[in-house]
Amino acid sequence: MIKAAIVGGTGYTGVELLRLLAAHPEVELTAITSRSEAGQAVADMFPNLRGHVDLAFCEPDKAGLNDCDVVFFATPNGIAMQHTPALLDAGVRVIDLAADFRLKDPAVWAQWYGQPHACPELLKEAVYGLPEVNRAAVAKARLVANPGCYPTAVQLGFLPLLEKGLVNAGRLIADAKSGVSGAGRKASVGTLLGEASESFKAYAVPGHRHLPEISQGLQRVTDTKVGLTFVPHLTPMIRGLHATLYAELTAEAADLQQLYESRYENEPFVDVLPADSHPETRSVRGANTCRLSIHRPQGGDTLVVLSVIDNLVKGAAGQAVQNMNIMFGLEEAVGLNIIALLP
Amino acid sequence: MIKAAIVGGTGYTGVELLRLLAAHPEVELTAITSRSEAGQAVADMFPNLRGHVDLAFCEPDKAGLNDCDVVFFATPNGIAMQHTPALLDAGVRVIDLAADFRLKDPAVWAQWYGQPHACPELLKEAVYGLPEVNRAAVAKARLVANPGCYPTAVQLGFLPLLEKGLVNAGRLIADAKSGVSGAGRKASVGTLLGEASESFKAYAVPGHRHLPEISQGLQRVTDTKVGLTFVPHLTPMIRGLHATLYAELTAEAADLQQLYESRYENEPFVDVLPADSHPETRSVRGANTCRLSIHRPQGGDTLVVLSVIDNLVKGAAGQAVQNMNIMFGLEEAVGLNIIALLP
Amino acid sequence: MIKAAIVGGTGYTGVELLRLLAAHPEVELTAITSRSEAGQAVADMFPNLRGHVDLAFCEPDKAGLNDCDVVFFATPNGIAMQHTPALLDAGVRVIDLAADFRLKDPAVWAQWYGQPHACPELLKEAVYGLPEVNRAAVAKARLVANPGCYPTAVQLGFLPLLEKGLVNAGRLIADAKSGVSGAGRKASVGTLLGEASESFKAYAVPGHRHLPEISQGLQRVTDTKVGLTFVPHLTPMIRGLHATLYAELTAEAADLQQLYESRYENEPFVDVLPADSHPETRSVRGANTCRLSIHRPQGGDTLVVLSVIDNLVKGAAGQAVQNMNIMFGLEEAVGLNIIALLP
Amino acid sequence: MIKAAIVGGTGYTGVELLRLLAAHPEVELTAITSRSEAGQAVADMFPNLRGHVDLAFCEPDKAGLNDCDVVFFATPNGIAMQHTPALLDAGVRVIDLAADFRLKDPAVWAQWYGQPHACPELLKEAVYGLPEVNRAAVAKARLVANPGCYPTAVQLGFLPLLEKGLVNAGRLIADAKSGVSGAGRKASVGTLLGEASESFKAYAVPGHRHLPEISQGLQRVTDTKVGLTFVPHLTPMIRGLHATLYAELTAEAADLQQLYESRYENEPFVDVLPADSHPETRSVRGANTCRLSIHRPQGGDTLVVLSVIDNLVKGAAGQAVQNMNIMFGLEEAVGLNIIALLP
Repeated sequence: MIKAAIVGGTGYTGVELLRLLAAHPEVELTAITSRSEAGQAVADMFPNLRGHVDLAFCEPDKAGLNDCDVVFFATPNGIAMQHTPALLDAGVRVIDLAADFRLKDPAVWAQWYGQPHACPELLKEAVYGLPEVNRAAVAKARLVANPGCYPTAVQLGFLPLLEKGLVNAGRLIADAKSGVSGAGRKASVGTLLGEASESFKAYAVPGHRHLPEISQGLQRVTDTKVGLTFVPHLTPMIRGLHATLYAELTAEAADLQQLYESRYENEPFVDVLPADSHPETRSVRGANTCRLSIHRPQGGDTLVVLSVIDNLVKGAAGQAVQNMNIMFGLEEAVGLNIIALLP
Repeated sequence: MIKAAIVGGTGYTGVELLRLLAAHPEVELTAITSRSEAGQAVADMFPNLRGHVDLAFCEPDKAGLNDCDVVFFATPNGIAMQHTPALLDAGVRVIDLAADFRLKDPAVWAQWYGQPHACPELLKEAVYGLPEVNRAAVAKARLVANPGCYPTAVQLGFLPLLEKGLVNAGRLIADAKSGVSGAGRKASVGTLLGEASESFKAYAVPGHRHLPEISQGLQRVTDTKVGLTFVPHLTPMIRGLHATLYAELTAEAADLQQLYESRYENEPFVDVLPADSHPETRSVRGANTCRLSIHRPQGGDTLVVLSVIDNLVKGAAGQAVQNMNIMFGLEEAVGLNIIALLP
Repeated sequence: MIKAAIVGGTGYTGVELLRLLAAHPEVELTAITSRSEAGQAVADMFPNLRGHVDLAFCEPDKAGLNDCDVVFFATPNGIAMQHTPALLDAGVRVIDLAADFRLKDPAVWAQWYGQPHACPELLKEAVYGLPEVNRAAVAKARLVANPGCYPTAVQLGFLPLLEKGLVNAGRLIADAKSGVSGAGRKASVGTLLGEASESFKAYAVPGHRHLPEISQGLQRVTDTKVGLTFVPHLTPMIRGLHATLYAELTAEAADLQQLYESRYENEPFVDVLPADSHPETRSVRGANTCRLSIHRPQGGDTLVVLSVIDNLVKGAAGQAVQNMNIMFGLEEAVGLNIIALLP
Repeated sequence: MIKAAIVGGTGYTGVELLRLLAAHPEVELTAITSRSEAGQAVADMFPNLRGHVDLAFCEPDKAGLNDCDVVFFATPNGIAMQHTPALLDAGVRVIDLAADFRLKDPAVWAQWYGQPHACPELLKEAVYGLPEVNRAAVAKARLVANPGCYPTAVQLGFLPLLEKGLVNAGRLIADAKSGVSGAGRKASVGTLLGEASESFKAYAVPGHRHLPEISQGLQRVTDTKVGLTFVPHLTPMIRGLHATLYAELTAEAADLQQLYESRYENEPFVDVLPADSHPETRSVRGANTCRLSIHRPQGGDTLVVLSVIDNLVKGAAGQAVQNMNIMFGLEEAVGLNIIALLP
């Protein structure tokens, strides 16, 4: 059994990790920390866990983190980087669900996250945990940077085109729509039901932190300079993320449908739909799956890729468990073979 | 492995049965029938099942139902009673998720369902599948009438009070609220998102078909004539059912909290919350659990019981699987040990 | 023109007052105050008001309140009572949308609101602004206590029965369901879309502040001691409030439908639906109307009254404007003749 | 008073027309037709209209349409073209809210709508009723083709750029998201709350009927061949439409913000937000306003325009009333000076 702990478990990625790890046959959940809620039973805060998780939140320094095999950070940005060096020194593997280790360049990180990086020397070692690109490196990693939700959906959608050099990498557009859980569980006016329900809006058009993460990931697979316009939107639902991707076809592709099917045929968590399909976010609710479809409207040279994930699963906690499975040599889908909840 | 088939699988109870049975370790799903959709892959209609269910819908007479161990009817009312006698004769056990076998009196059935009953002689044999009341009978049953969603939540809430004779059975009130999936998946104006979202209403106040079913169930445990006022409401969400129950306390109860905890302490799917709690429907979303709390506001003599279920799980497909587990001597929770999806 | 100001305009009752007063032909809106937002244009916070309201929030002491004809308080409980005496002394009429002047007994007020009342001597003078009961007193009032949302819907539903002495006043039940805007616009975890959407729950079953307000109002019209069980629920929508009321019929009523129609036939904002109807909250979305229906299921002695309002209009801002119209001798419906937004 | 009738009033555009026309000070609503509902009171189907509209639905041939000043068609595509010639001959002006007269080329119409056009000779005369482009022509029109919802939002967003020749007209992208009311009020599985709530999807990516309408409208203002990729999406809310528009800047624009503000400064129903804003659909709920913002992320050459409308108001019934006002020489905003309902 893998001894696992969660640091910072009071948010949505925390409770989702709990749901997945509590049902994972190879994991023993040893601790979940929260300074503010120390002493409270986890199941009092998250009643869906009653009867499934007996832990109470505890102070981080009483959590025995150094004795774990793996520690998940489900904390706000900037926390994991404070504690990761010591854990790695103690031989503990770390999976950070926040953004602390996602960018390779500490200057870029500092620019987008508004503070200097606490351990820039680890940015090189950290493995970006998108298994569909980095599986081998994840398997050997001590430290995995779990990708953001938008970056997961957008990269999985664009990768086949960029890897084959079929589109203009300098003019990519990602129009992405997320459910409100992506904004977290902290009290804020903007995500009240009274504000965010029955309404739709874009946000952060001038610049969103996931932009450099996506660009970095796409740049890995092409020599052309990546130019990406990324527009995130808030959609009135809890879970689900839909990316609509646009790219200019610059080569003649034999068969785009076939390209996508081949690229992902051995991927347990990427499902390419039949031609002319439109994936729905509900088809992945609670599941670790990304569903994709590829379109070429009216036979023109603008390609449209549709990519859906559950932002809390393949976009956060599920992908973290997938990475854990790979890191510990387990079958990749163990504990993640979940059928989405529909309706 | 139990060979199981589903008759009429295009509705919400059908797809929910598929979700549960596909993941059940002791079940082999052999067929799912639909006249209108025969030939279509199930996963084309319900994309959450892609990669999990390979079956296509088939005509009922080509489904090999007689070779199954158990057949689930997820059909409209009035269908199961046409086919059940032949299946029982063939040695197949039947679980009907519709209302055909829920009422004991064929005259009452005919009155509420608007047609004569096709096999009234089976009404006596049929076991009402509320395990918390009828577990022993279910274990021996050939034919189980799976309870309705409202009746499940209301009966589990009232039973401890009535069994102990603590309240006026002649003046019970059940104010119940259901998500829209309770109305099924058929096209209708009233349950369009444009009609049913951002609105709340009562319906069927003059009389709802679940009224005689609930009354019959409550009457089983008390000698006093049951008088029930039942008001169902439509609430703008997909899943979830909340019953708010009112009863007049007529005896001095030592400890109502203790009464409820004792009554259900060995029940795997009934969870009595701590005193002063308010269960949320989301705490059971996708799970087979009923959560209850008992209140006595201001120390008066009107008791308030709060009872929540997922109408498609403990209120339909999950309870059907629970009954199957009991009928076939399996551990009751196998395949049902699901953590609710929250948020 | 009536010179009107709003104190505390950053919440939902504030913006709703702005919507109604900005379109009111007899009102000049002179100021809206907010300490925290002083200087910000109102339309920057509430973009629906762009082009309709040019005011900026201002500090209360710079608002020229003493020069107004009427001041509306859309503040948290406990604020209006600090400022009302001085305003009345200055000859300004006051309409408080909070609870400061709703209860007649200062001891009861202190018990439920957790602080002593600042001007108990005004509690007697304050007129409870439910026009359907108190129209004549409102017309002469200097100080109106605008009713709460639950109390409006519940009282309008029960009044005809209690006024005629037809039911057991000692055993009334109000099962009420409110949209989330009833909880206000302040940041809180419980009303995030991620928490409150796709879920339903009761709250405050042990005791809610609207309980004494409703009881006091009902007691006015009956000599029998009122006994009320009040259970509020949160329903996943923005606006709308549905009260389902239960009462035990103790006299033989000639014609309940006729009773309700007669009671409210001259009321511009109470609409009794035809027999066997079920009002929907969306039928009053944005409108100042209360719609009612009366049922006697199965001819038994438990009556069921259904009552719907928009909690922000007839349950708050609309009723406040209605009271203003009455206080200033205007036609009662001026500025309020709004058709609900459906769908 | 303008005598107005509505043909086909049982859908969402019908009820919205009723809401607006019933409150319009210069309109007398003389008839509303529906073959299927003839005889039923309009307010029985749409309870928000109780007390505001006394009409019953009537058969079209008993509606006295020839005696009206204007007839609105709120019918499915293909109906208005059957009846318009006779009405025009009778001197009645016609505003069609469906698509019968939106396209100029009968062959293109036939291709996208799957039937030959019944009166192709009228296509040339019909005026496309986007007042911000065609105001003068609308004023003189006998027959107005009211624009579709997507075309309204997309054209208003792109027009300033195309009119000035600032972008590559051959590579435009419109990623649009609509509430479910855009799909109408007819019973269908896809728009049930159980299907469409808590989910997000694109649809009709291979080709949507609004594509040729938008392209035709954009082509009017540029000599370059318009190339448009249009991807509509269904978002889980009732009302509201958000278009996110992408264009490649090909000239150096002095000041894009200023360009938009100037273009629309005299338009009563187009509101350009301050720089760096993100319009929300709720800010126009129930109102006839289009709100726009223009962005140039990271100073690159991909422009992003955000455009929101209420699909049933500026995208349908409100724009139809605006056109009527222009046609009859009324002040353009009469009856439409509505503040959006927020929250």
